[in-house]
Amino acid sequence: MVLDKKDLRVPGFLANGIDVGIKDDGGKDLSLIFSEVPAVAAGVFTKNLFKAAPVILDMERIKKGVAQAIVANSGNANAASGDSGYEDALAMSEAVSGKLSIKDDLVLVASTGIIGHALPIKKIKDGIDRLVEGLSPEGILSAEEAIMTTDTFPKVQYRKGQIGSKEVTICGIAKGAGMIEPNMATTLSFIMTDANVSKHCLKSLFKQAVNCSFNSITVDGCMSTNDTAIILANGVAGNKQIAGPSKNLTIFKEMLFDLMVGLSKSVVRDGEGATKLIEIVVDGAKTLQDAKKIAYGIANSNLVKTAFFGEDPNWGRIVSAIGASGVELPTGKMELSIGGVPVFAGGKGAEVGENRLIKIMGDDHIRIVVKLGMGGKSVRIYTTDLSYDYIKINAHYRT
Amino acid sequence: MVLDKKDLRVPGFLANGIDVGIKDDGGKDLSLIFSEVPAVAAGVFTKNLFKAAPVILDMERIKKGVAQAIVANSGNANAASGDSGYEDALAMSEAVSGKLSIKDDLVLVASTGIIGHALPIKKIKDGIDRLVEGLSPEGILSAEEAIMTTDTFPKVQYRKGQIGSKEVTICGIAKGAGMIEPNMATTLSFIMTDANVSKHCLKSLFKQAVNCSFNSITVDGCMSTNDTAIILANGVAGNKQIAGPSKNLTIFKEMLFDLMVGLSKSVVRDGEGATKLIEIVVDGAKTLQDAKKIAYGIANSNLVKTAFFGEDPNWGRIVSAIGASGVELPTGKMELSIGGVPVFAGGKGAEVGENRLIKIMGDDHIRIVVKLGMGGKSVRIYTTDLSYDYIKINAHYRT
Repeated sequence: MVLDKKDLRVPGFLANGIDVGIKDDGGKDLSLIFSEVPAVAAGVFTKNLFKAAPVILDMERIKKGVAQAIVANSGNANAASGDSGYEDALAMSEAVSGKLSIKDDLVLVASTGIIGHALPIKKIKDGIDRLVEGLSPEGILSAEEAIMTTDTFPKVQYRKGQIGSKEVTICGIAKGAGMIEPNMATTLSFIMTDANVSKHCLKSLFKQAVNCSFNSITVDGCMSTNDTAIILANGVAGNKQIAGPSKNLTIFKEMLFDLMVGLSKSVVRDGEGATKLIEIVVDGAKTLQDAKKIAYGIANSNLVKTAFFGEDPNWGRIVSAIGASGVELPTGKMELSIGGVPVFAGGKGAEVGENRLIKIMGDDHIRIVVKLGMGGKSVRIYTTDLSYDYIKINAHYRT
Repeated sequence: MVLDKKDLRVPGFLANGIDVGIKDDGGKDLSLIFSEVPAVAAGVFTKNLFKAAPVILDMERIKKGVAQAIVANSGNANAASGDSGYEDALAMSEAVSGKLSIKDDLVLVASTGIIGHALPIKKIKDGIDRLVEGLSPEGILSAEEAIMTTDTFPKVQYRKGQIGSKEVTICGIAKGAGMIEPNMATTLSFIMTDANVSKHCLKSLFKQAVNCSFNSITVDGCMSTNDTAIILANGVAGNKQIAGPSKNLTIFKEMLFDLMVGLSKSVVRDGEGATKLIEIVVDGAKTLQDAKKIAYGIANSNLVKTAFFGEDPNWGRIVSAIGASGVELPTGKMELSIGGVPVFAGGKGAEVGENRLIKIMGDDHIRIVVKLGMGGKSVRIYTTDLSYDYIKINAHYRT
């Protein structure tokens, strides 16, 4: 779905993104999302122990379940920055709340970029007037552009649906590219909706949605210090409040999940240097944890990833990654297929035409299915291959 | 220490390596080590669940603590090969024991190469006569060459020492390059010594030696199906048997550890595409497990590895990898230095001249030290950077 930025509107939300000179390349680097009324808010944050200053601030503020603005910068992570980093995050928030004349604790803050350098807070403060004055209902794409780092395209998803007699809109933006690994969220993702949802319900739904979207992708197995996913629901649609199990909850949940899976897939598609989307399904595990261990064991194996980049059907590397995952399993029962073609069963390779596999490896979306035959748990995750460009992008990120 | 192959002799051992056409490139691919008398033997093997057929065979045979020959091939892993793979491993052993006129269960077998393809057993059997007839005391380097895969140089280490009135020799060979990760051994490594050591003592010493050598290195975090380290001690030196704590045990232990650390370092040096040796020391951990988690968390981070390849002192990625390791630690206490220069302490980046760090990143051996200040456990491991050549080598391993 290609959308014009004029279509990317969510009732009651204004947004903007501008260049204040944090990034060397002159791209937009300061982003603001503003709800005209205080919104119900929920967030999921990185589990990295070295949480960036804005993450620490947001985790505290989100507890009350209400927020009205998200200010975010790219080009500097404000991580590993100590007490002064926390003060900078606060100053960023205060500059925004002052100009918007809202309570300061209704502002959430996010940063992405290099770790361990002081945030250029003066540049940010100097840019706030321009940032706020440029807010518009059509500014969502600008806001997205200003949180991008090594992303090669903006990631925006948009859904409309009917809740009772009211039309409800959800729009989400994300930035990804590297340091993508679950147990955190993703890198940055902000979701806006005009739906009327209770705090409790939004928190629970959002956590589930993150689990099956941003927490089901990996590019390089690296969990960042800054990963943040936030949803704001301002209720402007005027639907009867979604507060518990109901038909309306189901409709909203489906819209939200679909949107977030879409966003997370586009993050993988744009993984640093990615040439392929690799879908990994692990079926028949005893526990969800086992299924995940195996899926991520495959997804984060550099040998598997490079074989996919080379379009080499070297499935032995997948078997080896499964065997190295630490999950006990009856090796004779395990079945592995690539693109629907069985390659391993009964403890050995299946008879399969090499040419057929080579053809499958040429696709840009490849599905690996592992059947364990041990139980009823399954998991589906998405990853990328590992290419020269990943090295190129990451060997010289700062230079 | 550069040694001529004529110097690479261990009393009582003969060796050879020849080309029987398993590898497409025409290199040597069949290797044999033979002790003129049955030797005390110990082995450490991969923990991968999908163990290759020869690993399964060896793990059974090594239990009795005696062996006399090791036959190994490169170019085919004989892994994920089912019952027929096991029969092939047995056939390989029987061909050798038949020609050498020794008991079959004194032969150990090893394979390395592509997973999931049938071992070309006929080529191997047809080559055994030539392999055995070519055995010589000077054949160790040939034997090494025949187990190499993507290795760019042979890995041989040699030590002589005095045990009582006797001179004792140890020589070890290894093949490495990719799929290097501990919890297994390494890829293939065979150690020959003429020392007289008891079974119990050799087993215990060898396990410790593997732990501080092959189990302390990682290239790509991938644990293979075939990793095998074997030591044969034939007692030909005639020293008083080393059977328990003694001065002689200490001397032998130091020789063995030094040799195996040397071998494992050369495996890392020759890691696929490696341009740098990265030494990671984690100090002051509560438990050894915590120290290892953090060390391997750093070592296997693609973002850290690519930064080292790019000689970019982006230490924030190291902090992020530590925070993502899953080990609970007081972030304010943690100290990080690169090449002796403190870069992070007290929860934030240290004031350090960027130029000084850039100079350090240009070295080909770089040391990272993490001090946790939580307890008395520490660990030291070795890894490599991640370069274009890793991708090149692994994207097209078979083609």
